[in-house]
Amino acid sequence: MTSEDSNNSNISKHKLKTTITKVEPDKIITRGYNQEELIENLSFAEMIYLILRGKLPKKEEGEILNHILVSFCDHGVTPPSTQTARIIASSGSPLNNAVGGGLLSFGYHHAGAIEKVMVLFQNAIKSLYISGDSELDDPQITDKALDIVYAGLSRGQKIPGFGHRYHKRDPRARKLVDLVIDKGHLGPHTKLAISIEHLLIEKKGIYLNVDGINGAILSDLGFNPKFGLGLFMIGRLPGLIAHSYEETMDDEEFRRFCDIDDINYEGFENITFKK
Amino acid sequence: MTSEDSNNSNISKHKLKTTITKVEPDKIITRGYNQEELIENLSFAEMIYLILRGKLPKKEEGEILNHILVSFCDHGVTPPSTQTARIIASSGSPLNNAVGGGLLSFGYHHAGAIEKVMVLFQNAIKSLYISGDSELDDPQITDKALDIVYAGLSRGQKIPGFGHRYHKRDPRARKLVDLVIDKGHLGPHTKLAISIEHLLIEKKGIYLNVDGINGAILSDLGFNPKFGLGLFMIGRLPGLIAHSYEETMDDEEFRRFCDIDDINYEGFENITFKK
Amino acid sequence: MTSEDSNNSNISKHKLKTTITKVEPDKIITRGYNQEELIENLSFAEMIYLILRGKLPKKEEGEILNHILVSFCDHGVTPPSTQTARIIASSGSPLNNAVGGGLLSFGYHHAGAIEKVMVLFQNAIKSLYISGDSELDDPQITDKALDIVYAGLSRGQKIPGFGHRYHKRDPRARKLVDLVIDKGHLGPHTKLAISIEHLLIEKKGIYLNVDGINGAILSDLGFNPKFGLGLFMIGRLPGLIAHSYEETMDDEEFRRFCDIDDINYEGFENITFKK
Amino acid sequence: MTSEDSNNSNISKHKLKTTITKVEPDKIITRGYNQEELIENLSFAEMIYLILRGKLPKKEEGEILNHILVSFCDHGVTPPSTQTARIIASSGSPLNNAVGGGLLSFGYHHAGAIEKVMVLFQNAIKSLYISGDSELDDPQITDKALDIVYAGLSRGQKIPGFGHRYHKRDPRARKLVDLVIDKGHLGPHTKLAISIEHLLIEKKGIYLNVDGINGAILSDLGFNPKFGLGLFMIGRLPGLIAHSYEETMDDEEFRRFCDIDDINYEGFENITFKK
Repeated sequence: MTSEDSNNSNISKHKLKTTITKVEPDKIITRGYNQEELIENLSFAEMIYLILRGKLPKKEEGEILNHILVSFCDHGVTPPSTQTARIIASSGSPLNNAVGGGLLSFGYHHAGAIEKVMVLFQNAIKSLYISGDSELDDPQITDKALDIVYAGLSRGQKIPGFGHRYHKRDPRARKLVDLVIDKGHLGPHTKLAISIEHLLIEKKGIYLNVDGINGAILSDLGFNPKFGLGLFMIGRLPGLIAHSYEETMDDEEFRRFCDIDDINYEGFENITFKK
Repeated sequence: MTSEDSNNSNISKHKLKTTITKVEPDKIITRGYNQEELIENLSFAEMIYLILRGKLPKKEEGEILNHILVSFCDHGVTPPSTQTARIIASSGSPLNNAVGGGLLSFGYHHAGAIEKVMVLFQNAIKSLYISGDSELDDPQITDKALDIVYAGLSRGQKIPGFGHRYHKRDPRARKLVDLVIDKGHLGPHTKLAISIEHLLIEKKGIYLNVDGINGAILSDLGFNPKFGLGLFMIGRLPGLIAHSYEETMDDEEFRRFCDIDDINYEGFENITFKK
Repeated sequence: MTSEDSNNSNISKHKLKTTITKVEPDKIITRGYNQEELIENLSFAEMIYLILRGKLPKKEEGEILNHILVSFCDHGVTPPSTQTARIIASSGSPLNNAVGGGLLSFGYHHAGAIEKVMVLFQNAIKSLYISGDSELDDPQITDKALDIVYAGLSRGQKIPGFGHRYHKRDPRARKLVDLVIDKGHLGPHTKLAISIEHLLIEKKGIYLNVDGINGAILSDLGFNPKFGLGLFMIGRLPGLIAHSYEETMDDEEFRRFCDIDDINYEGFENITFKK
Repeated sequence: MTSEDSNNSNISKHKLKTTITKVEPDKIITRGYNQEELIENLSFAEMIYLILRGKLPKKEEGEILNHILVSFCDHGVTPPSTQTARIIASSGSPLNNAVGGGLLSFGYHHAGAIEKVMVLFQNAIKSLYISGDSELDDPQITDKALDIVYAGLSRGQKIPGFGHRYHKRDPRARKLVDLVIDKGHLGPHTKLAISIEHLLIEKKGIYLNVDGINGAILSDLGFNPKFGLGLFMIGRLPGLIAHSYEETMDDEEFRRFCDIDDINYEGFENITFKK
């Protein structure tokens, strides 16, 4: 691969294959449905399910995805994505720069957990099916939970989706567990998450966080882990827009995470210049 | 202003004022409401209204905002934001780069119309209130529509929100007009949009487009024009994610809008190098 | 214009015209020159001049552009672009996200001054040529400087390119003035900048800043104002990379411009939820 | 880790430690040197070396870095970063959006090779030192080259830095080899690259590409692989700016990599909507 690596791969090809939206004069068909019908009949959460999955959700699936999206809405001014959006907004750049810049800060330390959770839980549950037992019973899941917790503890590794630096017990996670139980939608991945939580509470006083429970529920809904970050971004975008707007309503000055008088300079013993 | 203009404005200040979300141990309050209550009770469209406006919508306001968000979902592979997202995705960059990059292409020629529409319609309707007549009747709005259309035609200017390069009659606009009428939510800005459309059909065969009708309905819902682009981005983000994902599922090669054999070189008569 | 405005404009057209670089098997020609010759013979500053202007600079023009680029290198951690890059880097995102995000914060309040300066000075000097006097003499420029200063003072407007919130006398500006004088490259735009500075020192104790002098020198070099921001970005990118790298070498934690205990919450008297 | 993972890590800390630039009233010190001295005395390539490495380069080191930066300048319109920049520029977004967006497309398939090359070569050469032989002689390097080539061939893996999809023999690589030899700057990493090239030419007719040779030379200059992408971005930014500017000088229409008539729709047999 080189930095221009695009030069002649299949040079004459322009054709692009898509299954998402077909545009014809006065007609727009998305995932096989006429957009007029979608505009009239779908909730925004159902529309998101349809465009990402290529099929309509069942009514309860749409409701559960709606709860998940709302749970991602905002966590105040301190996450890096929110700080980034506010700083860019404060510099006088357009709104799409502020929120686009905010999305760029989703990295290894921020918003990466959902996908990790989904991979961990889906591999664990798949291994149970592989073991020939399609009818899932709790003992099997409890055993798997034990394996995961002991593997983590023995290696001294954090298990993604559990524990929150600021909250002892993430209030969003608790509420989401209650909602899937009330709606009779407790799937194997969520059962696994709850079993792991029981063990971690007992051993370390650590609880499920919003990413852990949402990664489990999204797995029960059948989402590919690659959509974990995407769904988080959809849920968080309105919050980033609200913060960017609030910032522009603020006084002229720039935001800064650090002022002149907060800086420790190192290695500035004065060197005299000679070439 | 200089390029470092941030240096000492109010140096010692770190305090940030926010009205959006308050975070306390095991408690997250957004716009005054406990997030557990929001997760349980709000549709995603209502959550978006709450976080942007700072108050809960009426039931019908949430439903109308939901129709608007769905109507923005996707318009196929050709818009610049979608092309940008697909090219970045095809280069092997993470999903947040692809969609973040896509948002950067909302500029003067792309997605800028909604805000222009909202400013035009809100100024027009405000001038009627200002004229002392708070009880809006159609004649007043029809006159205003005539002013706008004649001002536009006389200057040979396009009126933002009308006409679509690809669709003769944008199917989304027609559906949204029907929905607000059915729900008895025809406000003054939408009445104005419809009056302008009547004149433009007659004179030029031009119809309302999705930005024109949504700018009108969002104005009737009381949104500041500055949220026009934000709401479009919220509605379109799921589509950008679907396209980025579809691209990564595709063969290895890069997307290109142009291949070696599509390029016309100019000014390449060989110059011999001398310094 | 609509948000999808790209659909059928000139549908069948793929051809792209370019005058920048022609790629042939084992041969790359940029602005008419074989890249092997450019690699061997040009300074990076001369290469930048060539690719932006389409022609080689004179030796002294390349040297002056080199001074300008070095003068943009860095201004510490407080500019919004640097804060943005460091926050994104601290989130574990890749280096190109950090610096790409940093560039997004060049807006009205940050790095916008250079282009404004170039427009102001180029219009002023053009008006002198227009006045039929191609042989520029100082009295003419001094009169123009007086016009600009009095216009600014009478409207209470800042004149772009003068004054720095942190520095009384921007050390970079002083050095750049000395260098163009020493090299006998004092052109009409720089003469104008210096005349304006004399008046502003006298009346308000305000001096040229780095953007003001560079906007003037770039105008004397014949650059279009549209390249003002571009040249600033080229000069500043190495600094953004150095800061992003320093950030990743730092402890794990996120940067924040604001901590939980810095926040003033407003409007959080507890509202009880009812729908 | 959670998506808000930033909340209370070290809450009260604002202090930031930096070794890059110290700002005082009327004084700016970068890497220990007064910026006035740097503006007067350094080439832009030397400035880049200083700010990234924290020390001044030797004269020849600055010259070699200059050749490398020029060699990255541009490769025409087809690389994803250039396509992205041109599409965003064509949408009417500001220049910083176009080039910032372009940087976001540096991913696994694009511009990732330089760092891979630097890691491969630096590990290989380090292992020779480790083997106790600090005095490097060619036989040792030739053996290491054989190991790398056979390891690659046996696993059927491409060796990063060799081969170009468009060029049989990348003209930039050949020129850079000649220049380091002429200047007597052939270091162990470049010797290794050349030894590998000899073997690959013989076995597969594959030559060094621009990333391979630059990764080797940068390693001989002592750069950390983490700067590989950064130096490529610095070298390529002027090209991205030139392309973005050329695009805005072009006709109004959007760029597209794909038109309506290039699209193959799949799965659009008309489904009738029922919920």
